[in-house]
Amino acid sequence: MNSPLRLGIAGLGTVGTGVVRIIRQKADLLAVRAGRPVTISAVSARTRDKDRGVSLADYAWEDDPVALARRTDVDVFVELMGGSDGPAKAATEAAIAAGKDVVTANKAMLAHHGQALALAAEKAGCVIRFEAAVAGGIPVIKALSEGLAGNEITRVMGVMNGTCNYILTRMQATGQGYNALFEEADKLGYLEADPNLDVGGIDAGHKLALLASIAFGCQVDFGAVALEGIQNVTIEDIRHAADMGYRIKLLGVAQMTGRGLEQRMSPCLVPDTSPLGQLEGGTNMVVLEGDSVEQIVLRGPGAGMGPTASAVMGDVMDIARGLRLSTFGQPATSLSRCKPASTATPAPYYMRMSLIDKPGALAKVATLLGEAGISIDRMRQYRHDATTAPVLIVTHKTTRDALDTALTGISRLDVLAGHPVALRIETV
Amino acid sequence: MNSPLRLGIAGLGTVGTGVVRIIRQKADLLAVRAGRPVTISAVSARTRDKDRGVSLADYAWEDDPVALARRTDVDVFVELMGGSDGPAKAATEAAIAAGKDVVTANKAMLAHHGQALALAAEKAGCVIRFEAAVAGGIPVIKALSEGLAGNEITRVMGVMNGTCNYILTRMQATGQGYNALFEEADKLGYLEADPNLDVGGIDAGHKLALLASIAFGCQVDFGAVALEGIQNVTIEDIRHAADMGYRIKLLGVAQMTGRGLEQRMSPCLVPDTSPLGQLEGGTNMVVLEGDSVEQIVLRGPGAGMGPTASAVMGDVMDIARGLRLSTFGQPATSLSRCKPASTATPAPYYMRMSLIDKPGALAKVATLLGEAGISIDRMRQYRHDATTAPVLIVTHKTTRDALDTALTGISRLDVLAGHPVALRIETV
Repeated sequence: MNSPLRLGIAGLGTVGTGVVRIIRQKADLLAVRAGRPVTISAVSARTRDKDRGVSLADYAWEDDPVALARRTDVDVFVELMGGSDGPAKAATEAAIAAGKDVVTANKAMLAHHGQALALAAEKAGCVIRFEAAVAGGIPVIKALSEGLAGNEITRVMGVMNGTCNYILTRMQATGQGYNALFEEADKLGYLEADPNLDVGGIDAGHKLALLASIAFGCQVDFGAVALEGIQNVTIEDIRHAADMGYRIKLLGVAQMTGRGLEQRMSPCLVPDTSPLGQLEGGTNMVVLEGDSVEQIVLRGPGAGMGPTASAVMGDVMDIARGLRLSTFGQPATSLSRCKPASTATPAPYYMRMSLIDKPGALAKVATLLGEAGISIDRMRQYRHDATTAPVLIVTHKTTRDALDTALTGISRLDVLAGHPVALRIETV
Repeated sequence: MNSPLRLGIAGLGTVGTGVVRIIRQKADLLAVRAGRPVTISAVSARTRDKDRGVSLADYAWEDDPVALARRTDVDVFVELMGGSDGPAKAATEAAIAAGKDVVTANKAMLAHHGQALALAAEKAGCVIRFEAAVAGGIPVIKALSEGLAGNEITRVMGVMNGTCNYILTRMQATGQGYNALFEEADKLGYLEADPNLDVGGIDAGHKLALLASIAFGCQVDFGAVALEGIQNVTIEDIRHAADMGYRIKLLGVAQMTGRGLEQRMSPCLVPDTSPLGQLEGGTNMVVLEGDSVEQIVLRGPGAGMGPTASAVMGDVMDIARGLRLSTFGQPATSLSRCKPASTATPAPYYMRMSLIDKPGALAKVATLLGEAGISIDRMRQYRHDATTAPVLIVTHKTTRDALDTALTGISRLDVLAGHPVALRIETV
């Protein structure tokens, strides 16, 4: 048997505890598969005296994760603290400086500092693996960077925040509005300490930026992700979309266009018969499209102790087996700075507006759409109350620019009540 | 730039041509990702003078794949000829003996000779990769052997023969019987030269045996797969199953039980709302379940030039990047001979029978089920013709043994017209 791979684990929350548990309970299985034992030398967390349901007596304790990262009896620094900066970043940098490999679940840190960390790791001859940072237990980083390595990737899409998908599918199922379901998710403990990370699309945007970097060979650029959360998705739009055969999802899309790299995380309509449309609750789904493979769909739990620890262990086992790959699938020095193009790809759009019941109201809207070069695929006007009538429009493919031109005109109409809604329909 | 990885490709059918095309068209992308060029030194096929839509002028030609496998300018032998024995096996053995790595799409060869080839490869310090052998473009071998390496795998399931799924979903959609759709599939070129490989479940059984070996650390044992094809699936059962909320799929299931390793490839009922139930046409789906990850579902094209070549290239790129893993995810010498247990796991069953319209007919069936310890979940008796009445029964969970006992008794009843049908309902 070869020498053991010795871990130092910083962060003993749900995921860290799950990793310790697997290493203790599956030692023999891991050793057979890796050809060597996988052991823990030391751990670090904010509080030492907490019952985590797993014994830490065999491991050295470090109060300071930086000290843990530098220990000579640690081969791999496992960073499960979280936070884009602060101790997580300091300890990761210390580990790399000390020549240690890094396994992390920290999407925020990599979305903000991925390029600098990847450069440092390559210089030091270390690897950084982060399967657990994207889509929980789904081995999507591996599928994209290794399994599809022979493809020119054409598009990456995903529902990658389980909390948002929970809220949206519960709105659909119960007919309740966003605020009620936000509170339900909060009571169930599904929300981050800062809920805007979830419902504002930031957490999912971090994940999308990481996938886009691997897919298109670009330096990770979270700032270029066009972000829109689910806070303004109304129960009316969920119902109307369902009537027309669609579901609303917080969907991340990255694709390379003639105008640059498009990265979007926003509420979109998808067909209710598609795998994305059928995705319920907290489950995650990632769709990978390549010029050879066509389309691969990966589905699985996006969070939780077991699934996230499974992803961490996949990375640990890769390192134990000597499977070493550049952070973003190619040397960090070869990653280009891709020009951002936020919404270059044309798509059909769903529009909803309330028109005041006057002769010619609809004609004015149709005229403005026509003038912007937008043609109408389907239109429905619902039975109206005393003074206003809700109108739904599904356009043929158009650009966001053309749509914005039309919306500006429509907003100025004297027949409009309230604000018009426009949501992209993603072709899947 | 490091030295190139030089391929020798044997077999220039659809998949081989697809691989040549990718290597020619994506040379720069592959070189950046691998950190070295991927090139072709030589090729081999049955006929040299055939227009394959791609130039072979740059490559040496070998009539004999064994000679190709031994060439000193070949680092990796890419076996895309097919067939469990004959030239494919001879050339693969020659390649290993000459110290070459092997990439193959040959499920039949590995299902029959996987253990011997894996032992030979390890002795010679070579790797054998076979992502393209299972579920086409879906990187399932990688997901299972690497991504989920921290899991004790609990069950592997899959729809892995696109032709069978095409026939079954077309039966459902058109109401036509098996024979008509078999002919349709044949006209479309979807069937192997020996159609029994498809509709008899053999091809899918090969794939299941390979996944089971990786999942459970067992020597691949195709002979232990309980095989049943789709030839006897009737349009009546497809209709009745649909009425009760199920779809019939040719489903492979491998799981470790207290009685040994269970491997089955047979028509099963699955809920129509599950991802497996919703899988239409030629698409493949594999479900991986582990003690930590819970459930991962992978979906994608199971065949075709692009997807299969994508899988071959995934393996080639792994080797180019120095990512080297044992054939079945752990040393071949550590794979155990697992005791086969064909259908040990209890499950609910769907039963259909025609009863002659006599008082007490149904009571006799119910009595026999009760005597076998089988309880009934749901039962339907349909409006009958002059003399017989179709009866559908969904049982609670029971063993195959108990079911067989009951079926033996039922077959002897004087109230039975024709043969009773019994299909397993797989919990997904």
